Amino acid sequence: MTKWVYAFSEGNRDQKFLLGGKGANLAEMTNLGLPVPGGFTISTEACNEYMRLENAMPADLMEQVSAARTNLETAMGKVLGDGTDPLLVSVRSGAAFSMPGMMDTVLNLGLNDDSVKGLAQQTNNERFAYDSYRRFVQMFSKIVLDVPGDLFEEAMHDLVESEGVENETKLTPAALAGLVVTFKAIAKKESGIEFPNDPLEQLRFAVEAVFKSWNGRRARDYRKMENISDDLGTAVNVQAMVFGNKGDDSGTGVAFTRNPSNGESAPYGDFLVNAQGEDVVAGIRMTEPLNAMGNTFPECHKELLAVMHQLEQHYRDMCDIEFTIEQGKLYILQTRVGKRTAAAALRMAVDMHNEGMIEEREGVKRVTPAQLDQLLHPQFDPAAKYTVLAKGLNASPGAAVGKVYFTADTAEAAREAGERVILVRPETSPDDLHGMIAAEGILTSRGGLVSHAAVVARGMGTPAICGADALKIDVAGKTFRVDGTVVNEGDVISISGTTGEVVIGEVAVVTPEPTGDFAIVLGWADKIRTLKVRTNADLPEDAVKAREFGAEGIGLCRTEHMFLGDRLPLVQKMILASTDTEEHEALEALRVQQLEDFVGILEAMDGLPVTVRLLDPPLHEFLPNIEELVAKEANGTITDEEKVLFAAARVWQEFNPMLGTRGCRLGILKPGLYRMQVRALMQAACQRKLAGGNPIVEIMIPLIVTRSEFDLLEGWTREEAAKVCQEAGVEVDYVVGTMIETPRAALTAGDIAKTAEFFSFGTNDLTQMAFGFSRDDVESRMMPVYLERKLLPVSPFEELDRDGVGRLVQIAVAEGRAARPGIKLGICGEHGGNPASVHFCHEVGLDYVSCSPYRVPIARLAAAHAAMDSTGPGTNA
Amino acid sequence: MTKWVYAFSEGNRDQKFLLGGKGANLAEMTNLGLPVPGGFTISTEACNEYMRLENAMPADLMEQVSAARTNLETAMGKVLGDGTDPLLVSVRSGAAFSMPGMMDTVLNLGLNDDSVKGLAQQTNNERFAYDSYRRFVQMFSKIVLDVPGDLFEEAMHDLVESEGVENETKLTPAALAGLVVTFKAIAKKESGIEFPNDPLEQLRFAVEAVFKSWNGRRARDYRKMENISDDLGTAVNVQAMVFGNKGDDSGTGVAFTRNPSNGESAPYGDFLVNAQGEDVVAGIRMTEPLNAMGNTFPECHKELLAVMHQLEQHYRDMCDIEFTIEQGKLYILQTRVGKRTAAAALRMAVDMHNEGMIEEREGVKRVTPAQLDQLLHPQFDPAAKYTVLAKGLNASPGAAVGKVYFTADTAEAAREAGERVILVRPETSPDDLHGMIAAEGILTSRGGLVSHAAVVARGMGTPAICGADALKIDVAGKTFRVDGTVVNEGDVISISGTTGEVVIGEVAVVTPEPTGDFAIVLGWADKIRTLKVRTNADLPEDAVKAREFGAEGIGLCRTEHMFLGDRLPLVQKMILASTDTEEHEALEALRVQQLEDFVGILEAMDGLPVTVRLLDPPLHEFLPNIEELVAKEANGTITDEEKVLFAAARVWQEFNPMLGTRGCRLGILKPGLYRMQVRALMQAACQRKLAGGNPIVEIMIPLIVTRSEFDLLEGWTREEAAKVCQEAGVEVDYVVGTMIETPRAALTAGDIAKTAEFFSFGTNDLTQMAFGFSRDDVESRMMPVYLERKLLPVSPFEELDRDGVGRLVQIAVAEGRAARPGIKLGICGEHGGNPASVHFCHEVGLDYVSCSPYRVPIARLAAAHAAMDSTGPGTNA
Repeated sequence: MTKWVYAFSEGNRDQKFLLGGKGANLAEMTNLGLPVPGGFTISTEACNEYMRLENAMPADLMEQVSAARTNLETAMGKVLGDGTDPLLVSVRSGAAFSMPGMMDTVLNLGLNDDSVKGLAQQTNNERFAYDSYRRFVQMFSKIVLDVPGDLFEEAMHDLVESEGVENETKLTPAALAGLVVTFKAIAKKESGIEFPNDPLEQLRFAVEAVFKSWNGRRARDYRKMENISDDLGTAVNVQAMVFGNKGDDSGTGVAFTRNPSNGESAPYGDFLVNAQGEDVVAGIRMTEPLNAMGNTFPECHKELLAVMHQLEQHYRDMCDIEFTIEQGKLYILQTRVGKRTAAAALRMAVDMHNEGMIEEREGVKRVTPAQLDQLLHPQFDPAAKYTVLAKGLNASPGAAVGKVYFTADTAEAAREAGERVILVRPETSPDDLHGMIAAEGILTSRGGLVSHAAVVARGMGTPAICGADALKIDVAGKTFRVDGTVVNEGDVISISGTTGEVVIGEVAVVTPEPTGDFAIVLGWADKIRTLKVRTNADLPEDAVKAREFGAEGIGLCRTEHMFLGDRLPLVQKMILASTDTEEHEALEALRVQQLEDFVGILEAMDGLPVTVRLLDPPLHEFLPNIEELVAKEANGTITDEEKVLFAAARVWQEFNPMLGTRGCRLGILKPGLYRMQVRALMQAACQRKLAGGNPIVEIMIPLIVTRSEFDLLEGWTREEAAKVCQEAGVEVDYVVGTMIETPRAALTAGDIAKTAEFFSFGTNDLTQMAFGFSRDDVESRMMPVYLERKLLPVSPFEELDRDGVGRLVQIAVAEGRAARPGIKLGICGEHGGNPASVHFCHEVGLDYVSCSPYRVPIARLAAAHAAMDSTGPGTNA
Repeated sequence: MTKWVYAFSEGNRDQKFLLGGKGANLAEMTNLGLPVPGGFTISTEACNEYMRLENAMPADLMEQVSAARTNLETAMGKVLGDGTDPLLVSVRSGAAFSMPGMMDTVLNLGLNDDSVKGLAQQTNNERFAYDSYRRFVQMFSKIVLDVPGDLFEEAMHDLVESEGVENETKLTPAALAGLVVTFKAIAKKESGIEFPNDPLEQLRFAVEAVFKSWNGRRARDYRKMENISDDLGTAVNVQAMVFGNKGDDSGTGVAFTRNPSNGESAPYGDFLVNAQGEDVVAGIRMTEPLNAMGNTFPECHKELLAVMHQLEQHYRDMCDIEFTIEQGKLYILQTRVGKRTAAAALRMAVDMHNEGMIEEREGVKRVTPAQLDQLLHPQFDPAAKYTVLAKGLNASPGAAVGKVYFTADTAEAAREAGERVILVRPETSPDDLHGMIAAEGILTSRGGLVSHAAVVARGMGTPAICGADALKIDVAGKTFRVDGTVVNEGDVISISGTTGEVVIGEVAVVTPEPTGDFAIVLGWADKIRTLKVRTNADLPEDAVKAREFGAEGIGLCRTEHMFLGDRLPLVQKMILASTDTEEHEALEALRVQQLEDFVGILEAMDGLPVTVRLLDPPLHEFLPNIEELVAKEANGTITDEEKVLFAAARVWQEFNPMLGTRGCRLGILKPGLYRMQVRALMQAACQRKLAGGNPIVEIMIPLIVTRSEFDLLEGWTREEAAKVCQEAGVEVDYVVGTMIETPRAALTAGDIAKTAEFFSFGTNDLTQMAFGFSRDDVESRMMPVYLERKLLPVSPFEELDRDGVGRLVQIAVAEGRAARPGIKLGICGEHGGNPASVHFCHEVGLDYVSCSPYRVPIARLAAAHAAMDSTGPGTNA
């Protein structure tokens, strides 16, 4: 006989695949002797068996549930359905990985015509009991019996009318008792099932409903998006209910063993007297800080602190704990490793390491690359002078400046019109999500640090201030007041989610130079990772900055950036040249300029490799806008000079520039161009070498589709380089390689690697071509629709698409290495700074990633995570 | 001891890998007892051993050559280097596959200071002997000793000056003898090698030179382009020389066992008295037809006809024979299966089958798909009235109309300017190739049916008339005269390469409906092929036409073509719609129109599958040109109506439309659009079904990149189709599939096939995206450069690129079939009508190809060839 049901005392935290995450933690706490309301868990195996049997309950399951119920009743000293002091239970789903809100929950199970009386008696509150009963019937019918919810709303509405009361909170216990009868009748009519009075039958229905919800549409979509296997199944937790709203001797709260905002090693949390858990999270009522509980509930507070210490020591991490006090007795309802800000994660990692709780490797795992990203967010300039208008809770770090908007819709519209927006709300709800996404910063007048606004903002890395209760917000009037000051829609304010300060007008913001904990944790990461991290830098100052951030070379130096600005006329001269001599002169002038740039870059990266990409963009990018010239020609204001440029622009005009005459195609059409660039680069390298430097040069030919292109251009490159070295009288080593940025190059990489000495994956273009998505066009018009409709889980420009683009990379890596075992492989697309993509790069065995200077620390950390073979964004996920 | 050397009598025609193609055929003819000048072949194995030894002669090779030489001398009754009647030999390369002009040849080997006297005595022509000797020294030094050729030209030029003669043909024998001494001195100075007098040493040098030429740059490039393995090596043929220019009792010619132009079963050829083989091919002198030889050389003619009959019976195919008569004796120098026109190929295949010479399968092999293409070329309209200005040889079939140009450069320039061109030349040479490519037709006043102009034109499928000697051409004066009529550059003429007629002005041309032999051979092909052939057709009339050509359904019906013309305002109305009602009204009007089209197409293809692709192009293609509107706005001529269209065009404007909002992306953005199209199509199908027809509908969703897109749109499609069938009260089966036209779709085909019922490979877009080549931009600007520089062997838009695009197709086929074993797979890019690509489609196991109506016969034949697993374009290659 298979064991399907586990009392909390029978499990432990390592059994999340059997008992689900919630069940495993409840078991762990029970075995630690903590005051957890009793209960049991029906295993994920039972769920899987249920599905294997095509929605039939496994043999013996209900017998085991019945036995577990009896044990629970014995332990709790209460009986389900009892007419005097009934046991009520919650039935909650709990899978191995958190799937918030995706599956079903039934509360207050065990209520029936008898036990409602017991509840009334126990709570001395008949209205509360019958309201709970009608809520249970309503919830159960909707979730378990699939009855449309609006039927109940209508019935209640009718009753409110016929009773002549203001709203449903004014209904009498008798009226509510009548409503229960009505609700049961509706349920029977719609489902054909008599509403079950027997608690065991209620349990059976509820368990089946949770099982079925595993394969509900929402849950399946969510798993697909999050890459969670459909085979895992969900566990079902049946737990005795406790009530924090039984009077002033009751209460509920959320506690963190350390400060999740700044990492400080001190208990932290929110508490509400005579309230239910939802009230804390919803931010509807102002919470008290946790230490205030020491005054009102001294014993419970002391006990809670002990529990918190025990849990942190046990989990060796900051724990997030939900607790309830029912009539003076403390219950721990749930615990899990808590979410935290970037700064807090770093500080906790370093502190806990110093406290001997964790190893360095564990410390690195405790900080996610995405958190580092937040840490690099801007802050108010410390030198800036400003007057603080109001102060709230520092809910999500970082500073933001923008125009005030009071609704999600207006905020979104303003953002689409190109404005920077601060969303100001009394509180936020899931309905406000699109406005929160559109905002640079979020400011609420109500709610605490675990309110919706705070949690979501931290998750998005958006600066937020919560509970700034000095603000009197008039959403309809599109205004808020702080004492005598009025701020209207469209006015500019600045907020610091790090300090909680609200300021009228624009405050200068700066991006901090992270030190201390940041450097310590990244130092640990560097010891762990095997993937090198380079930077994309086109200018000497970028190279200097990136080196400070830990870059180990340049993976992509785009030489086209050197062609812009005041050098543009030279480029135009080259394009317009009607003779070889003119072209040569223009190229020569450009060479002198490029030489200077290259010397600076090689100096900044002395001793580290520098990959220089020969000119890539279409020439027409260096020519004037055709439409402007068309207009000028039409209205007769075109100059003779412009006419010449116009003609040239016409010659180089293309229908699809992205797939046009760019990269090595241009190099082939204008042989003098690449030779000039190679000459400038190698002259710079020779200069550096003669000056005692150690230039390490990698010359990269872009947009190869076939080896013959590479061979031709590599030949020119080596010819020119040899000449330069001979002229300079010095030998400079260099390698010649290519970008793999067309699907064909990836598919024929084995051939190309016969002559190319390195590959750098240009995953931006590879993504554009593999998907047929022009970044300029599709990202704005299509991507929001695709993400909203869940046609794609994430933009492939943000996170490397494993199935398509990733497969091309894998093919090229395998076949490139087979053809040339020592070939150096890197990535220089923007994915090089995206943690999930860095993970992929590690998996497929690249030698390095290259990213923008500010993302170098993120890539270093992500590479360490990848090396530790963590399968996601860290243990805090 | 390895046998390296084979006397001609020791080999046969099946040994082309050992003896090369030329050697194998010489051996075959020798064993047939034909009068082949004696000789021997050094095997390809010897060449490979030479290369394996890193350019050292294999052991025993020269001993075997020496023995073969002695045998040859015995057989010929002459001795190499003999001072009275010397044997001279040619040394020619000969690989398994023809590599024309790619490797080296040495003629007149055996000449030295002694044998030159013997040659003078034998020919009674001292000048001829010494001129031959200096030519031999010059050729040998250049080819074998690597001496720069211009040194000899300079020395000869100096001698001509110092002798005070007009040109080198006026040099005396004594002067030529002196020149030989000078040449040998140059050779020694440059190469450090004493010019070899010993014929065996000459032979050794020459054989080594041929071996080395196998790995020469030109030969390697050629093999790469033609996909010939580098491991094959070349054989070396040493053959006694005979001379057709020893007087009026000598001559040379080329004979075909049947007429290579029209296939008539009668001997055919060209002959020249007192001439060498080159003179016939070069077209410098007017040749006599073969039957004229019956008068001048009756015995030889009779013998030749017997040889021709014997060879045709033996090879069971039309043979192309080179022969020489030396002082009254006929020699057969070479034979091979001859090239022929399309019409000739068809006629020969049918005739030879009727004559019992070949099986049907062999008959199908005898006609190449490329030839059928020629056959479908236009001809003068039989109903047209015109006056023939002149008549020449019908060198390459088809009719052409264009403006007269007299040089390759002017022809090319005119073509680039958009004109249709007839290239008119006295004769053509390889230097004229670019002009010939640019021309619609070619007309020469000199040269026969095997002249350069004729051979090249037939190869290109370009209509050509050769040897129209009534034309008096003045290239410098840019004019030609025929009697009193003058035709100037730029005048329009018409030519028929089928009849040889030249006409002033434009003659109407028609594309013939091939029947007879054409239908017979294609009937045979249909029995052999396994690949189905469908057509791309958007209109009922195209569908009818294609069905006549043998199409077995429609592989691609592009619905966007139905949106153009007078329906454009409806489309614009839909785009501009500001309310759902407006959009719906516009869509409804379009639906009515589409319904009509679909009924017509389903009727034309009744009982055969019709794949309808939902709308694919970007919407902005249906909007006016932005630049025109910019100009109108700038000069104030824009109308209010245009302003509205302008605004819409701006909204839909894209940087890279090819990678923009098209295909299913548009379908997702405008859900009403695809629903309307599905509705119209299914309504048409219901109508047809109710009318007793058998509509077979395949609905194709374009530009999928991920299965979720497909699933969404397939859902809409099935919803709409079900509604339509219900409304019509009739069940119509249909399938829903997708184009695989993005690299990502190919790479994730295994997933997409879980729901898609068929794949149609859109290899045009797949090529654009795999290469990153915008067809609109790259084909004109880059492709000519790429082909010229041999960066690509052929345009990937013309012939499917196996390594890149082909690999994507293979991945999708394998993984699509694995996911859905019965999935229907086809191709609907333009490659579907390209023979090499059809071959690929057969190899990878597609179910069908789809191509334009006129290419259907070509695809049918190509599919048969593929099924017979021929590795190239047929046995005539």
